[in-house]
Amino acid sequence: MRVLVINTGTELLLGDVINTHLGFIAREIFPLGLRVDRQLAVPDGLAIRDALSENLQAAEIIFLTGGLGPTTDDITREITAELFGLDLVLDPGLQQTISERLRTRAIRLTDRILRQAMVPRGAEVLPNDNGSAPGLYLTAGLNPRIPTPHLFLLPGPPRELQPMFVQSVLPILRRIVREHELIACRSYRIVGMGESYVEEAVGAQLLAISGLELGYCARMGEVDLRLLGPSALLEQADAIVRAKLASFIFSTERENLETVLVRQLAARQATLAVAESCTGGFLAHRLTNVPGASEVFLAGYVTYSNEAKSAALGVPASLIEKFGAVSESVAGAMAEGAREKSGADFSLGTTGIAGPGGGTPQKPVGTAFVALAGGGETLVRQLFFPTDRETFKQLVAQLALNLLRQRLGGVEN
Amino acid sequence: MRVLVINTGTELLLGDVINTHLGFIAREIFPLGLRVDRQLAVPDGLAIRDALSENLQAAEIIFLTGGLGPTTDDITREITAELFGLDLVLDPGLQQTISERLRTRAIRLTDRILRQAMVPRGAEVLPNDNGSAPGLYLTAGLNPRIPTPHLFLLPGPPRELQPMFVQSVLPILRRIVREHELIACRSYRIVGMGESYVEEAVGAQLLAISGLELGYCARMGEVDLRLLGPSALLEQADAIVRAKLASFIFSTERENLETVLVRQLAARQATLAVAESCTGGFLAHRLTNVPGASEVFLAGYVTYSNEAKSAALGVPASLIEKFGAVSESVAGAMAEGAREKSGADFSLGTTGIAGPGGGTPQKPVGTAFVALAGGGETLVRQLFFPTDRETFKQLVAQLALNLLRQRLGGVEN
Repeated sequence: MRVLVINTGTELLLGDVINTHLGFIAREIFPLGLRVDRQLAVPDGLAIRDALSENLQAAEIIFLTGGLGPTTDDITREITAELFGLDLVLDPGLQQTISERLRTRAIRLTDRILRQAMVPRGAEVLPNDNGSAPGLYLTAGLNPRIPTPHLFLLPGPPRELQPMFVQSVLPILRRIVREHELIACRSYRIVGMGESYVEEAVGAQLLAISGLELGYCARMGEVDLRLLGPSALLEQADAIVRAKLASFIFSTERENLETVLVRQLAARQATLAVAESCTGGFLAHRLTNVPGASEVFLAGYVTYSNEAKSAALGVPASLIEKFGAVSESVAGAMAEGAREKSGADFSLGTTGIAGPGGGTPQKPVGTAFVALAGGGETLVRQLFFPTDRETFKQLVAQLALNLLRQRLGGVEN
Repeated sequence: MRVLVINTGTELLLGDVINTHLGFIAREIFPLGLRVDRQLAVPDGLAIRDALSENLQAAEIIFLTGGLGPTTDDITREITAELFGLDLVLDPGLQQTISERLRTRAIRLTDRILRQAMVPRGAEVLPNDNGSAPGLYLTAGLNPRIPTPHLFLLPGPPRELQPMFVQSVLPILRRIVREHELIACRSYRIVGMGESYVEEAVGAQLLAISGLELGYCARMGEVDLRLLGPSALLEQADAIVRAKLASFIFSTERENLETVLVRQLAARQATLAVAESCTGGFLAHRLTNVPGASEVFLAGYVTYSNEAKSAALGVPASLIEKFGAVSESVAGAMAEGAREKSGADFSLGTTGIAGPGGGTPQKPVGTAFVALAGGGETLVRQLFFPTDRETFKQLVAQLALNLLRQRLGGVEN
């Protein structure tokens, strides 16, 4: 089945916002054996009509994002109803949901906002748990007089679209593709090994399995390995992957590293603290993004200044004086200080030079140390990531978390 | 002039790579008064031919990225020559550049690689300082028998495309647009007011200015208002926007809130600390993403447990006992504690219930308090954002930063 993604939004075409919808949708529909054949981005307003009308015959499934909000340039709903020859009718359930949502937020219900409760007759409402604009699904040929594809209208903000896609769109897609041959999929999340090393370790053996499709995707400090094919082949491939990569795989459920760690800590009723200099709160942020983090995460110390390292963590000023704030000794002392001050079982420490300023010939921008205290000897690793500031923070945080993962026992599947 | 961007590359449509070309090109051409009217992404191979041939009349300027490399699916050069009715000829200068490049890298010159020295007759070569595939520029109507637009063929890797665009493409574009009227643009970043309220405040008055185009873009806790049109109209619109929204505008330079705050603090040589419970390190993370943050940001305390609130910040256990950790009093005490412990001039505190667990009838999930200490009386605001965990953190952090912005003097333009 041909799949088309139409992204609407002037902000995309002005470069104010990066289009993450295409990637998200592509990855989500992949396990169903669906691929995006073409993607299109157009500004808000009447360009949406052209994009949709030109492409109604170009695909069996169209995902259209954006233009469902309350402002005047949000006209996706109206354009679709017009092109499909369908009336727009007020959905009483939606009207109530929107009214209640506004009431709990003490926002006044205006006519503009209420437009979001209008639905092309016969369309299925896809609930939006994170915003007021619902998604809509128009089944293929909804108006028998007009040949149309399956059309999904989805909200523009990723935090609204993504949960809606998983909760409401994927079940419908499974129905749509049921009759097509189902291809199975496995994915492995790998940390501590680069993409080309992963390929070197398993690529040749996997490619030798005829009928198996494989893909790699490198992200910040981690690699996804994806396998697609009939189940029997996947079993065969799985044995190869585990034999070669077991200790580097942290999830086969597409979870992130912090989610796995919070669960592992909770399972052994252990607690964690972090002492951050160069990661600047990012480690704490990642850990506290995990629901239930408060059971295991006690405290984070973002000790950016030398004074804060001493005052909050008890790192001796003489140690900083002697070795420098970015050093093996200070990283270790930060982790140990955080453990002691918080009473946590485990603790992580980070110190480094994120740049752009602050580098020296001995310690150039990109130098970092990560440390782990608790559960044995304090460990410190030296790292070097000469890159931009945010990437640096992400890579250092990832390696720090991986220290903890290794100490907690490594493999989890 | 209508501008089209065609991005080629199967990796884009599989979601393995995020398309950064559209945003980059859009931002680079904007100062020339050019805007991208439409963007299209297609896989490698023959889909490129369809995308290009369908759209030859759809724009005056086309940027096509990818498909210029040495592998078999790189056929952009050949397809373009065929569609434009032009021969492909070997460019001796290019041949030499490519040979030399390979020699210094000890890579063998193969026929495949040498294909990159073939040029549609009459096309201008755009040198590639960071890779072997050159870019190509075909001027509009290069073959007088076929009506064609200005076409730029650009390499797929961003680190090759971006310097080439700045060095070679922009000068050509300046030549192309010289005669056209320049359209200007203003953008306003707004915090503390929702999208529909912004529209209500200025929408009608701005829409009354004929020839002015406006757009809204809502992000986490902020709204972008964008105006496009001839300069005289923009002046008129600017007066309206400032009269109505002045105290909510934090940037007209498309900066984020933390960047503005770090600059404002640095300008007055003031320092900042943060005490975070429900934002869990995200405030510190945002602030430390700003280059130069270490000049103003002293310390962050991510006090997730009650014990940490008392131990790290000196919040009296009795206060937590009496009012609860999520309370006006504790938020204020956290901010004041962080200020005192770190010696910072200003400090922010956050406490709340991110959920999904932990809510009570009196304090449901979504309840939060943000506090500001320093520069006057300690301020505390109660918030309510019943949403997912990450959005909650972002919205609370945004409102906390806005407290500081207001105290520092509000408007900056």
